[in-house]
Amino acid sequence: MFRTQIDHILENCEGALAGTVMGFDGVSLEAVSTKPNLDVKMVSTEFSFVLSQVRKAAEILEVGGLEEVSIRSEHLDFLVRVLNTDYFLAIIMAPDGNLGKGRFLMRLAQTEIRPQLDG
Amino acid sequence: MFRTQIDHILENCEGALAGTVMGFDGVSLEAVSTKPNLDVKMVSTEFSFVLSQVRKAAEILEVGGLEEVSIRSEHLDFLVRVLNTDYFLAIIMAPDGNLGKGRFLMRLAQTEIRPQLDG
Repeated sequence: MFRTQIDHILENCEGALAGTVMGFDGVSLEAVSTKPNLDVKMVSTEFSFVLSQVRKAAEILEVGGLEEVSIRSEHLDFLVRVLNTDYFLAIIMAPDGNLGKGRFLMRLAQTEIRPQLDG
Repeated sequence: MFRTQIDHILENCEGALAGTVMGFDGVSLEAVSTKPNLDVKMVSTEFSFVLSQVRKAAEILEVGGLEEVSIRSEHLDFLVRVLNTDYFLAIIMAPDGNLGKGRFLMRLAQTEIRPQLDG
């Protein structure tokens, strides 16, 4: 489920290491990692709580629906595309990865994934 | 204090609307807005709690120090550059703003602001 879309991003974006479709409750629907020691579920679950907080802050501020979040740390980039009210797509990238291409491919993937989630 | 650096970003980045240097405790050292109805302090204070949570998650995951956070909502982009353990630089951009240039100018500003904060 959604493996095709995640694989497409990992294969076509330089530096993309892992991806997941996850609920804001931290439950993963699909998770793919190209590195044995990179647990994308663990990373995304840890950040899922934070994402819920970001969404709440955006609601309080009335700045419109949350669309994307990027978190850059010293060792990795964590890119998030909000899919609908319940789910997000997250990609973990190497610090020298192509972030612009990653965001672009995630937007494309959203158009394929979202109908399946909503349907 | 830091007004010169914030102004430089607002004047040289298309779509940059407001900026602040703020503590993770939500207390602003400087805040500049080019729009009377855009309260950058209020927006940044609301997100400062979330940023602390992001930082904690990064610590738990041992992915290195937090460097940048970007939050894109329907009506605005909120870009954050972590300056040191206590402070961050935040810029609010219009959705059609030049995010890449904004991030670049924020990195430059950090090299000027940080010595003043640490000194």
